[in-house]
Amino acid sequence: MKNTGTALPISGSQAEIAEFSDLRSIIVNDIEQRWNGGGTLIDDACRHAMLPVGKLFRPTLLLVSALAVGGNAESVVAAAVATETGHTASLVHDDIIDADEMRRGRPSVQGKYGINTAIVAGDLLIFSLFDMLASCATAGIPAGRVVDAVSAVARAGVDLCRGQSMEAELTSRRLMQVEPYVEMVRLKTAALFRAACEAGAILGGGERQAIDSLISYANHLGVAFQIQDDLLAYVSDKERMGKGASTDIHKGRPVLPVILAYQQADPPTRRRIERCLSGQIGPDEALREMTAICASTHALELAAQKAEKHAKAALGALDVLEPSPARQHLAGYVAMTLNRDR
Amino acid sequence: MKNTGTALPISGSQAEIAEFSDLRSIIVNDIEQRWNGGGTLIDDACRHAMLPVGKLFRPTLLLVSALAVGGNAESVVAAAVATETGHTASLVHDDIIDADEMRRGRPSVQGKYGINTAIVAGDLLIFSLFDMLASCATAGIPAGRVVDAVSAVARAGVDLCRGQSMEAELTSRRLMQVEPYVEMVRLKTAALFRAACEAGAILGGGERQAIDSLISYANHLGVAFQIQDDLLAYVSDKERMGKGASTDIHKGRPVLPVILAYQQADPPTRRRIERCLSGQIGPDEALREMTAICASTHALELAAQKAEKHAKAALGALDVLEPSPARQHLAGYVAMTLNRDR
Repeated sequence: MKNTGTALPISGSQAEIAEFSDLRSIIVNDIEQRWNGGGTLIDDACRHAMLPVGKLFRPTLLLVSALAVGGNAESVVAAAVATETGHTASLVHDDIIDADEMRRGRPSVQGKYGINTAIVAGDLLIFSLFDMLASCATAGIPAGRVVDAVSAVARAGVDLCRGQSMEAELTSRRLMQVEPYVEMVRLKTAALFRAACEAGAILGGGERQAIDSLISYANHLGVAFQIQDDLLAYVSDKERMGKGASTDIHKGRPVLPVILAYQQADPPTRRRIERCLSGQIGPDEALREMTAICASTHALELAAQKAEKHAKAALGALDVLEPSPARQHLAGYVAMTLNRDR
Repeated sequence: MKNTGTALPISGSQAEIAEFSDLRSIIVNDIEQRWNGGGTLIDDACRHAMLPVGKLFRPTLLLVSALAVGGNAESVVAAAVATETGHTASLVHDDIIDADEMRRGRPSVQGKYGINTAIVAGDLLIFSLFDMLASCATAGIPAGRVVDAVSAVARAGVDLCRGQSMEAELTSRRLMQVEPYVEMVRLKTAALFRAACEAGAILGGGERQAIDSLISYANHLGVAFQIQDDLLAYVSDKERMGKGASTDIHKGRPVLPVILAYQQADPPTRRRIERCLSGQIGPDEALREMTAICASTHALELAAQKAEKHAKAALGALDVLEPSPARQHLAGYVAMTLNRDR
């Protein structure tokens, strides 16, 4: 049984092993086939949103979670694609909310097709993902599991929306506290990680304890992922990230490094932070200022420690699962999350 | 067994009969309980969208469809509320697209909370409706039926989005043809009628033939409903309708009376119609002009005939169902659709 760093089992029970790139191809092929036809404006807009594909982290998580509980990956490909579809829908609507004209280096859906089409395209993607989930019942998954997976993904979608709204509330209130930030991230960023891991574990036939451990894994992974995102905005150059910390600062978002800097800061420094977030000074100056404050308060190191704490908790949650190549991969994603540079 | 015009069976199999107002109360109570808590911005926005309730036509259709195939209404109340939730989500997003500040005589969600919150609230409603559907499995409905109902509602939601996009395309192209109009309405307006009737029939345990007949019923009812909407805009006063034909004309929408007038009209009259839809003249003048053209071309009578044709087809589709109070009610909704004045 071959199991290198890039190897991933396609069917755990049959111990079939394929390269990671094969698993990715299965997901990509499925997405390409789904958005191949049509030719109407809304088909074009949805295809533009879905293709070319992104990192495909959520669908990969779903497949590997199914494998980690002894399930079969082929039967749940549609569910994996459903989570990517939900993620894409949220990006399409996010770009309207954030007035972002660009996404992954090319026009966003709203940038290319306008706000109205982007609203409808996002809605279509959300509706269609539930048909994808339902279709797992025709791929041999017992209907009871499919119903539970529908519920898991629907609840995660609701959480995602609550998280987006909470982020807007925290931003407008300039709330500089860690706990509400973590709660917001658990709702927003971790939601679709949770959807992927929970649905994968349910569809794969996992016991309650295994499902719960994968939910816990996803929550901690999601928080670690978001903190790393916040950090990358400060340590990466703009080109690599697409948009950097200046966007967050400009929009007045209290991301974790800013919150931690604020908590370490003396009153004059706190006023400087508030000024950076106020939108009263230019984005470049605000970024320089915040970077200097983060350095003097060691906020980036503190944020990185927080990310590591959640990463360790994610790894710990995997302990109840039987050792397997899939579990090993889930552990690997935690390291990837902290070590990524984009 | 009591069966007056306002009576409606709550459980067909047990021949329990309740007043129509009782059925309505069950739906209203369920919605009120669901949107009772929270207190966050997004909870407020969703509650504002859902309450006070509208006509509740779609959830009623779902319950009565379940009864018409011998099912039980209590077990599918969550699914009924799901269809109303989907309808509400589409209104919330529609009001952004149409820049409508008002809805049912009070501020729309985007009018009260802004576009960003309205986008997220609509998304939350869509996600939550699928959790409601899934919950029918815990109310005694076999999981296989629930999965099929999820698929039916998801596909109808996709159709709804396609219909909205198609309407925008027909409007921008000023396409004055009946067939594309009917196709658009079948996608847009009939979608959630179809979702309600199909899901109701599936969850109620209907055979394939009964499910198909209720799908056909819903399609024809939906088209008749939309044509009646188009007509009401011309024959009702503005106050009664909320917004009248002048809105459609002002937005350049080729609704059925306009399409039929155009088809009957000579070239000079066609140019007058084009001018009305062009936005070059004021809404009041455009409405007066189009009303006159509709009168001279008998377009309203022709549109009413078309609505009646679909109404008859809807009634015909019910023939394969066993006679029952529920079937009688479904037939009654067809008459109500044509006779309503708002």
